[in-house]
Amino acid sequence: MSPSPARITAVHTYDIRFPTSRELDGSDAMNPDPDYSAAYVVLSTDAADGHEGHGFTFTIGRGNDVQVAAIDALRNHVLGRPVDEVCDDPGSVYRDLIGDSQLRWLGPEKGVMHMAIGAVVNAVWDLAARRAGKPLWQLLADAEPEWIVRQIDFRYLTDALTPEEALAILQQGREGAGERRARLLDRGFPAYTTSAGWLGYDDEKLTRLAAQAVADGFQQIKLKVGADLDDDIRRCRVARQVVGPDIRMAIDANQRWNVDEAIRWTKALAEFDPYWIEEPTSPDDILGHAAIRRAVAPIKVATGEHVQNRIVFKQLLQAGAIDIVQIDAARVAGVNENLAVLLLAAKFGVPVCPHAGGVGLCELVQHLSMFDYLAVSGTAEDRVIEYVDHLHDHFRDPVVIREGHYAAPTAPGFSAALRPQSVAEYTYPGGTFWAADPETQKGQAA
Amino acid sequence: MSPSPARITAVHTYDIRFPTSRELDGSDAMNPDPDYSAAYVVLSTDAADGHEGHGFTFTIGRGNDVQVAAIDALRNHVLGRPVDEVCDDPGSVYRDLIGDSQLRWLGPEKGVMHMAIGAVVNAVWDLAARRAGKPLWQLLADAEPEWIVRQIDFRYLTDALTPEEALAILQQGREGAGERRARLLDRGFPAYTTSAGWLGYDDEKLTRLAAQAVADGFQQIKLKVGADLDDDIRRCRVARQVVGPDIRMAIDANQRWNVDEAIRWTKALAEFDPYWIEEPTSPDDILGHAAIRRAVAPIKVATGEHVQNRIVFKQLLQAGAIDIVQIDAARVAGVNENLAVLLLAAKFGVPVCPHAGGVGLCELVQHLSMFDYLAVSGTAEDRVIEYVDHLHDHFRDPVVIREGHYAAPTAPGFSAALRPQSVAEYTYPGGTFWAADPETQKGQAA
Repeated sequence: MSPSPARITAVHTYDIRFPTSRELDGSDAMNPDPDYSAAYVVLSTDAADGHEGHGFTFTIGRGNDVQVAAIDALRNHVLGRPVDEVCDDPGSVYRDLIGDSQLRWLGPEKGVMHMAIGAVVNAVWDLAARRAGKPLWQLLADAEPEWIVRQIDFRYLTDALTPEEALAILQQGREGAGERRARLLDRGFPAYTTSAGWLGYDDEKLTRLAAQAVADGFQQIKLKVGADLDDDIRRCRVARQVVGPDIRMAIDANQRWNVDEAIRWTKALAEFDPYWIEEPTSPDDILGHAAIRRAVAPIKVATGEHVQNRIVFKQLLQAGAIDIVQIDAARVAGVNENLAVLLLAAKFGVPVCPHAGGVGLCELVQHLSMFDYLAVSGTAEDRVIEYVDHLHDHFRDPVVIREGHYAAPTAPGFSAALRPQSVAEYTYPGGTFWAADPETQKGQAA
Repeated sequence: MSPSPARITAVHTYDIRFPTSRELDGSDAMNPDPDYSAAYVVLSTDAADGHEGHGFTFTIGRGNDVQVAAIDALRNHVLGRPVDEVCDDPGSVYRDLIGDSQLRWLGPEKGVMHMAIGAVVNAVWDLAARRAGKPLWQLLADAEPEWIVRQIDFRYLTDALTPEEALAILQQGREGAGERRARLLDRGFPAYTTSAGWLGYDDEKLTRLAAQAVADGFQQIKLKVGADLDDDIRRCRVARQVVGPDIRMAIDANQRWNVDEAIRWTKALAEFDPYWIEEPTSPDDILGHAAIRRAVAPIKVATGEHVQNRIVFKQLLQAGAIDIVQIDAARVAGVNENLAVLLLAAKFGVPVCPHAGGVGLCELVQHLSMFDYLAVSGTAEDRVIEYVDHLHDHFRDPVVIREGHYAAPTAPGFSAALRPQSVAEYTYPGGTFWAADPETQKGQAA
């Protein structure tokens, strides 16, 4: 009799909150006082190797408990699954989770429930990569194109991208992949930095951090805008003077505007040569983005960090609404759905420049951009990953930035594991930090 | 010293689940075994009148606990508010809830968190109408147009509908309102029935229920389709033969298809003269609906029960993607957001035929259609409210259907209150029904 296969034996969830609102890190026109948080999930198995799978949803404070409850609601879909089956085909978990007809009613495929699915699916990929002994980018880049295609749910996509087209893109992507891998390992993947541009920073801090960004080798910075036009004009002028004409300067309104307002405001900042305007309006407004893009060209339009799923990305591309696809590693239903978005972007010839920052989003999304470079788009031209210098110390395998580039991760997995001490300290409300801080705890409770 | 004003003193939440999956009531191509459920909220006050406000999110079983957790996360936004202020301006609560920058991250304005906001906002309207001693439809119809306009958040709408345009529509809507009110009280508002057409019913039951629908005075029925084309052809033939050529017959695919599939399948059923095809594809696919509508005309395209917010409705109208706007009373953020959708529909000249059924959706949405008739569109032509004969007995003020019409509710409020005995019986998992049924309980737990 053969021994019973190793199975997933536990789905641990944690409500992790960092008190970032105290420094106005992360402040923008819509989010004045975020407490960067993660609804964190760890999959345990009874395999002899002892590997775990780690994933999370990023939130900005209140509601992180709702996100944890949503992950808990998925527990019975994952518990008891054979580890080999799950790791050989993470898509089987993804399909099962998005296919639960009762849970589907809570979306479908959007918001709290969908992000919870993303956390679990990403944890499965983390486990799969650890067991394979590879960083996730490499596991994906080494996979057969046919296998990658099977990881994707083409429902609602085939009017824009068929499985056959996706396969052709991936087969094409094999050309020159070895050379690109060597370059990636040598040089890393280009980053841009948002660390200078938070709305809560004064001009002195903006000046200092913008100069530092250039000194650190970044070729692009980003400024938050949208609260007050006069302030924005002043801050853009300051930043442009500091970085000079050759550094790209993106601006980000975090959904603050109506369509006509977005057009007026962006044009009023055109003299500072912004490279892109990010989230000018609601992430749901495909036609609105298209109208804005027509009006503000040649300034590019970027969005995606709040785009709920592949179906909205599909339409943004079909409608010619954006110049830049900003995937987020933890907003959609994890790696599988992001594979679809990378392939859609390649089909439409639109560069992918991921959203990152928050808690661990840099750690995750670097793997997807590196896969895109190696196996999908085949180029890093006009591609940059957002970089924000926050909270990396809490991760076991934090990102490494060298001369404005993300170094290719070498540790097996999806870089998603928090350090045990950080979990012990920042679990809300019982962790050592929050338990010692009743005042803050009171303010946090929604 | 004046006495302190009455305040909201408690926000009670309940996880209510009905075991509907046992009869295949509500079965369709995407939802084979729903357990109709409600995340139910009751606002208590310390006012002398003793009125409460009732609201809920409708779900189909698993995940109802997540929905309850989401309502709980809103508690501190509502507790302690002066009752008069809240009832004089429910929009103040709506704006506060959608404006919480940390909770907003979990949407924005979509999915679990947004539906939770809808439950609370609807409870506020229920309370306001009870205190005013009017059914909600009447409270709305009696309100000043300027006040109605102030209840709406025009962010992300002004490229399609400005406050000035909304006001003009409402002012225009006053003409003939008295006559319409007399007709409404006399005749009610037209309904159509879905009770005959669930996918899990056999031909005998379909035949019997379709004949009954005609005998009961309904001018329109609806059939679920999308699981198997041969079955659909047979069922549509049976139903058309039973109801004859003059009864409208809608079909509903519950998001089952890709765009090209939707077009082929709908055309294959064209010989049975379907009046509309409902939810042919993803509710997020604005451009997909537009393509389907162009291809299947003159069959109409309808959607809305899963449309997440006013921004997507706006685009469906801008893109000419739908012939019928199917608002749902508990999917968006409650009455306030639905006021925006009614006015958008009126601006674009598209009729509103609400989604209903589930738990209490008929009870709620009748008020919105009656307001639309009296004060916005000013007509009931080609307008029908869905009617499903499920679970009405659990409500204190259940809908009354007469000769295929919803009778105008007369009891004060939003018809949203469950009967105390139903709450005691079907609260999950501790209610008397579930506590006595451990087998089912095990199957339910997600």
